Amino acid sequence: MPELRKDPIVSRWVIIATERSKRPSDLVRPDDTPKPAEKPKFCPFDEGNEHATPNEVLAYRREGTAPNSTGWMLRVVPNKFPALMIEGDLGRRGDGIYDMMNGIGAHEVIIETPDHNAHLADLSEDQFQDVLWAYRDRIMDLKKDKRFRYILIFKNHGERAGASLEHTHSQLIALPIIPKSVAEEMTGCKSYYDYKERCLFCDLVSQEIEDQKRIVAENEDFLAICPYAPRFPFETWILPKRHDAHFEDATKYEIKNLTLLFQRTLKKLKKALSNPPYNFMLHSSPVNMPDLPYYHWHIEITPRITRLAGFERGSGFYINPTAPEVSAQFLKELELP
Amino acid sequence: MPELRKDPIVSRWVIIATERSKRPSDLVRPDDTPKPAEKPKFCPFDEGNEHATPNEVLAYRREGTAPNSTGWMLRVVPNKFPALMIEGDLGRRGDGIYDMMNGIGAHEVIIETPDHNAHLADLSEDQFQDVLWAYRDRIMDLKKDKRFRYILIFKNHGERAGASLEHTHSQLIALPIIPKSVAEEMTGCKSYYDYKERCLFCDLVSQEIEDQKRIVAENEDFLAICPYAPRFPFETWILPKRHDAHFEDATKYEIKNLTLLFQRTLKKLKKALSNPPYNFMLHSSPVNMPDLPYYHWHIEITPRITRLAGFERGSGFYINPTAPEVSAQFLKELELP
Repeated sequence: MPELRKDPIVSRWVIIATERSKRPSDLVRPDDTPKPAEKPKFCPFDEGNEHATPNEVLAYRREGTAPNSTGWMLRVVPNKFPALMIEGDLGRRGDGIYDMMNGIGAHEVIIETPDHNAHLADLSEDQFQDVLWAYRDRIMDLKKDKRFRYILIFKNHGERAGASLEHTHSQLIALPIIPKSVAEEMTGCKSYYDYKERCLFCDLVSQEIEDQKRIVAENEDFLAICPYAPRFPFETWILPKRHDAHFEDATKYEIKNLTLLFQRTLKKLKKALSNPPYNFMLHSSPVNMPDLPYYHWHIEITPRITRLAGFERGSGFYINPTAPEVSAQFLKELELP
Repeated sequence: MPELRKDPIVSRWVIIATERSKRPSDLVRPDDTPKPAEKPKFCPFDEGNEHATPNEVLAYRREGTAPNSTGWMLRVVPNKFPALMIEGDLGRRGDGIYDMMNGIGAHEVIIETPDHNAHLADLSEDQFQDVLWAYRDRIMDLKKDKRFRYILIFKNHGERAGASLEHTHSQLIALPIIPKSVAEEMTGCKSYYDYKERCLFCDLVSQEIEDQKRIVAENEDFLAICPYAPRFPFETWILPKRHDAHFEDATKYEIKNLTLLFQRTLKKLKKALSNPPYNFMLHSSPVNMPDLPYYHWHIEITPRITRLAGFERGSGFYINPTAPEVSAQFLKELELP
């Protein structure tokens, strides 16, 4: 019998095929494996091609190297084709029953390494940690701009996950609004807090540690789980064990432990699903809000190994052929070199 | 300057590229056009292959023909690989902080025509009308089952929209829960109604008729528009002009007028975008609810001509390269044979 399970945070019901749950071998499609490199095309993210991007807003570089020249380990540049414009005022206004404002925002690209062929999962620990520091540095800078309410950080890996350039990178979008998925999470968490006076994510972390069934990996500060009501096969979340509303408040030691657990999780997903296309998104509190007792930052990783059935897009109702207990156990037991 | 627009129903903000809005010629990809038919494969939905599906639960057939034999114009059969099971009780229960129930529900397929190569847009008017009557007949039957709260009717057209068989068909899923997208619409509409004592969709219909800018087509009873804050290029909604919470309450005359407008809209989308993959979903009230004064049934058609950027899946935040005013005008002016 399939199960209907409810995500406790956003009250989304999903159908989980619990009996004949699909394992990676049933899910991996041949075109998920990386294609042999074609003849190298010009890549604006390669070292030496710094002129091909807008000027960097942040770079971690070797001492003595000049901005927008070679010698960097990581660069952050404005998106050359931004979805939003940085200059201007919000101009909030009505249009009959409708509401609108100018498309003001920042759209930046975090080039995670100069190495064209590297994968985020395979970067050195230091390099991976620098990616997380770059996220934080950009958040700290952009949150000074009072027009912005939310800073969305995400990664599209692989063409089927929406990556238009193969050179590994993440993206940042600073917005004058709170994206719907985060607003929904906040509403759900607030109503739990109003009722229980506890953080829902903190309770979830406790229960997952007690149950053990959905844990992928764990260390002192972080937990990687396949959530109870996942939308997608092998969906995996990384949660800080300690309550914190803002990612950018993580300590140096926590960033180190996040690096270890996050990268280990990505390595496991890469191995289990033959380098699947995936997206991840950092869910953190709106930047201009205080340290909410009811919201708990986390990262959601969603491999794209099944085609999203059409109606799921329109209904918000998902059918998942893999129970999270199956995917978590598989990932947990998978040995890494 | 791009615009941030807010959908008034579910409070979802989207970025609309208003200045250099993409027109169909910029959006249509070569692989959107239908491929030449390969050698005919066995199709369980073809006439003569009735044995290959579970027994029909409804059929419109020529007089004197037997169930599950040839001679039908339209058949409704249970899905051979149902996502939910029809037999059993709901067994609602908790699991620590989590909630679940058994995966009880109906999953049916509406085979819209015996013609393997026909498109829904190109069916005769009578045949198209029969598809709508079949939706209604199945809703009326399934709503007797008190376990079900919602009946989801949708269509996936084209492989990229999730259709696994090319023979034109729609699907029905009866659920013991209300899908998230509909629940969200109801919440938004209710809060507007509490404030204004008017139906939000009724106000939206009035404003669209006054503005004229986003109308694709119109008749006495129905309006086809590109909505103010669409998620996808050429997203189009069909709205009844008269307030009604339930699709299944439509009159015979309204079904006729819906047929005319709905089919005309699908023909226009097919021509404008070279037979695009698309999904549509019927949004109607939960079946066991009275005639809500605040909810208004409608149909949402979403062509799949752009790849969904990864983060949109995780954030509920959409970037749409085509303003609805541009797509509506294009579709409105498009002449049909």
